[in-house]
Amino acid sequence: MFYDAIKLIIITEKLISRKVCEIIEEQGGKGYTMVPAGGRGLHHFHATDSRASVVDDFTELKIEVILSHRDRAEAIAEKIMTSLFQDYPGIIYLENVRVIRKERF
Amino acid sequence: MFYDAIKLIIITEKLISRKVCEIIEEQGGKGYTMVPAGGRGLHHFHATDSRASVVDDFTELKIEVILSHRDRAEAIAEKIMTSLFQDYPGIIYLENVRVIRKERF
Amino acid sequence: MFYDAIKLIIITEKLISRKVCEIIEEQGGKGYTMVPAGGRGLHHFHATDSRASVVDDFTELKIEVILSHRDRAEAIAEKIMTSLFQDYPGIIYLENVRVIRKERF
Repeated sequence: MFYDAIKLIIITEKLISRKVCEIIEEQGGKGYTMVPAGGRGLHHFHATDSRASVVDDFTELKIEVILSHRDRAEAIAEKIMTSLFQDYPGIIYLENVRVIRKERF
Repeated sequence: MFYDAIKLIIITEKLISRKVCEIIEEQGGKGYTMVPAGGRGLHHFHATDSRASVVDDFTELKIEVILSHRDRAEAIAEKIMTSLFQDYPGIIYLENVRVIRKERF
Repeated sequence: MFYDAIKLIIITEKLISRKVCEIIEEQGGKGYTMVPAGGRGLHHFHATDSRASVVDDFTELKIEVILSHRDRAEAIAEKIMTSLFQDYPGIIYLENVRVIRKERF
């Protein structure tokens, strides 16, 4: 009842998130989930000096897409990387997951 | 100091989330974490045409449960699937994790 | 273009989160992502009887750090466990991920 699938995770500024979602849809992603996010460091937009201000400041989105096929996940990741993340900071990574109802992904 | 465990992830509407949490507790889950979520696509409730409205609209919850035993994680997933997700959209999937303090999961 | 890496996940109260982030930085983490979180159970702060109050009550943070080296991830986890989580509840766990631009982690 469980099937191997790939979860693609993208963390980016809200402003860029619409373009990320367009790429996901164009490349055949059947849906995505978003959660509010913030952070510090090389990948983040608001790398302020004040740690305090970051804690409650969720100005980014973590976008998650589950896909049946690793090839498609990697293609979306590379498209986002080359189209958007040359100019903007952001994180992209992959995780192995096991899903129910594989046909939905 | 690290031990293999399974993380069960459920994404569902807030309205349904209480029933999801009841099933987790009935089936022996020792705790769960929730984060606000939203999304688009087959699994989501608010598959509106307006992408803009989704970005800041976290009307769902992502519920995460870590369990020591894969069998228990799968049993909870199948119970939620058959009890709730026949009628409601939602996502359920599993990930491998490594935990400290195994006895707490 | 994808490389193996480790994601370290810490769920803790906001009050403690600054100390968690200080440890991450001291131990060589190059950045971290935070999302709002809440929950119930052994690991959580607000294990209230009222399930209703928890659903919209995100008084904790889920902090995620991706690291190229497993040893460093485990060192940070153990430092947080021994320095902070003897006195405070919280969750720490690890996941395998695959990243682009390994030099950033």
